[in-house]
Amino acid sequence: MLKTPAYAAVRANAPLAPFAIDRREPGPRDVLIDILYCGVCHSDIHQARDEWGGAVFPMVPGHEIVGRVAAIGSEVQRWRVGDSVGVGCFVDSCRVCEACAAGEEQFCEGGIAFTYNSHERDGKTPTYGGYSTRITVDQDYVLRIPDAIPLERAAPLLCAGITTYSPLRRFGVVAGTRLAVLGLGGLGHMGVKFGKALGAHVTVLSHSPNKLGDAERLGADAFVATHDPAAFVQHAGRFDFILDTVSAAHDYNAYLNLLRRDGTMVLVGVPEPTLLAAPALIMKRKRLAGSLIGGIRETQEMLDFCAGTGVAADVELIDIQDINAAYERMLRSDVRYRFVIDIASLGREAAV
Amino acid sequence: MLKTPAYAAVRANAPLAPFAIDRREPGPRDVLIDILYCGVCHSDIHQARDEWGGAVFPMVPGHEIVGRVAAIGSEVQRWRVGDSVGVGCFVDSCRVCEACAAGEEQFCEGGIAFTYNSHERDGKTPTYGGYSTRITVDQDYVLRIPDAIPLERAAPLLCAGITTYSPLRRFGVVAGTRLAVLGLGGLGHMGVKFGKALGAHVTVLSHSPNKLGDAERLGADAFVATHDPAAFVQHAGRFDFILDTVSAAHDYNAYLNLLRRDGTMVLVGVPEPTLLAAPALIMKRKRLAGSLIGGIRETQEMLDFCAGTGVAADVELIDIQDINAAYERMLRSDVRYRFVIDIASLGREAAV
Repeated sequence: MLKTPAYAAVRANAPLAPFAIDRREPGPRDVLIDILYCGVCHSDIHQARDEWGGAVFPMVPGHEIVGRVAAIGSEVQRWRVGDSVGVGCFVDSCRVCEACAAGEEQFCEGGIAFTYNSHERDGKTPTYGGYSTRITVDQDYVLRIPDAIPLERAAPLLCAGITTYSPLRRFGVVAGTRLAVLGLGGLGHMGVKFGKALGAHVTVLSHSPNKLGDAERLGADAFVATHDPAAFVQHAGRFDFILDTVSAAHDYNAYLNLLRRDGTMVLVGVPEPTLLAAPALIMKRKRLAGSLIGGIRETQEMLDFCAGTGVAADVELIDIQDINAAYERMLRSDVRYRFVIDIASLGREAAV
Repeated sequence: MLKTPAYAAVRANAPLAPFAIDRREPGPRDVLIDILYCGVCHSDIHQARDEWGGAVFPMVPGHEIVGRVAAIGSEVQRWRVGDSVGVGCFVDSCRVCEACAAGEEQFCEGGIAFTYNSHERDGKTPTYGGYSTRITVDQDYVLRIPDAIPLERAAPLLCAGITTYSPLRRFGVVAGTRLAVLGLGGLGHMGVKFGKALGAHVTVLSHSPNKLGDAERLGADAFVATHDPAAFVQHAGRFDFILDTVSAAHDYNAYLNLLRRDGTMVLVGVPEPTLLAAPALIMKRKRLAGSLIGGIRETQEMLDFCAGTGVAADVELIDIQDINAAYERMLRSDVRYRFVIDIASLGREAAV
């Protein structure tokens, strides 16, 4: 076993603190990765605080992992020591179910191993995430980070990036699509960037009028402040597609009314259950859909798309010692637009 | 004006009773139709009782109209006296908006004229439906009833038929699709027939175990009684597509859980607003959509499809004098599967 420095929550609501974990020695098909950066996803907070139930403690969060290959197993052909690589929301899956066969491992029906707060395929060994200095991962669940993307700005692509890229591509956002991005946080700011890179006309819908400047800077073509009820009248029937990134309670019906005939709204956030009125879908034959990250193949496609178009996350680099304060700032939406932990700060701590 | 016998509700909750209306003399582009049969849609009850608000009284319901051409205007080329024709849920639309241009007149943004409980395009003249002996309609809003379909069994196709045919075709039900039809009423029984005609594997989901026999007789391949909670466990992830025809309150999330990955549930009924939990859509990337009747072109396509495949509604013929009793039976779901008024009964009454 490889004793590895990490930060963990030892129980729900405990602040994250230094903690040592064991990583397995790389097996024949494994890749050992020295972690350089790890993005901080809002779901890290939900899980560290056991807000979704069933949490596995001690918990080392982090599923937006970027680093360099430090060692490879004897059968590994695709990776070399020194390669820039990433690990996203899962580190293994059954590989034989219909979803895995289709390259949609995120919907694995045979038992997916999430990157943390989960177990390996043996059902016993807990998984630990990227708030740590290294990780051992099966070669098939490793992503290649193209040289064109700065590594710290690549980390959030592994979750926030694929979460927004996948639905835009799958549900047909193309050049000229009138796209609205609802919410301008970690997910929303990626939605704006991907929408522009795909050639869409992008409108940001935000409760916060003070995000107008940011929306423009990110490349949005228009901004609608949704605290004004008149906005819902003025923009009714305007959009082909709404990417709904909001996790706080909001009225789906009001936003569906902003879609034109045959328009689609895709949910990637998880608010409390919300009242849906059937006429909001029936009257103009609209669609409400959900989307969940993406498979390995699609995630690699997304990274390559980013390299080709110059898309990367806007990040604030933090030291691991600031993680608890960063969580508090995230709960106030005070981050533009993703905290990324410089894992060197953890290495220095461990060396002391 | 053509004085025309009808049955009307003179105010909300008044029983329907004999009433004389004026039909316009056919203009150059009009068709005068002698009505033979008129289907009884559940929405007739909602509207006659002003349950949706804004009702126009006196009201002559009926938008599943079948009859024969009695006279044509000077410019009418497509129709001849004696032709078997139908009229559905609308009798005019603006013809210039994007929806009308696309042949989707049901979504007209310039002011649609519904067949009853509405006004002609002048915004003043009330429209009266098919519980009457004749109707004058613009030639472009008349459907051709193929000879292969018995006229009384064709009437419900104009609403119940197109309401179920359109979403099955539009959202991709094809041979081999695992289709579930939720609710076995006027809409649901058409959904089963269309599903089978398209080659789908059709399962009926019904709260009423005693509809098993009917489901089999209609051609369904399987039947699931949904009063048993175990059914929702047993059949989780089973269907590609659910056609939800139920207008009573029900839990969308429970039915969405019966869909497989990338499955679609389409609402054609309008229950009370219902709590929707985002994970019900996100976890297997599902879609919840709505659908509303169909345009003239698609309605004609549906009628021709019925002629080619032997699909027609199962009906109980009634006299107009029994309409109020029929409404009460419909409220008890005691009809298999559509009441159709034999308008000859109204003609005899008027002649007395």
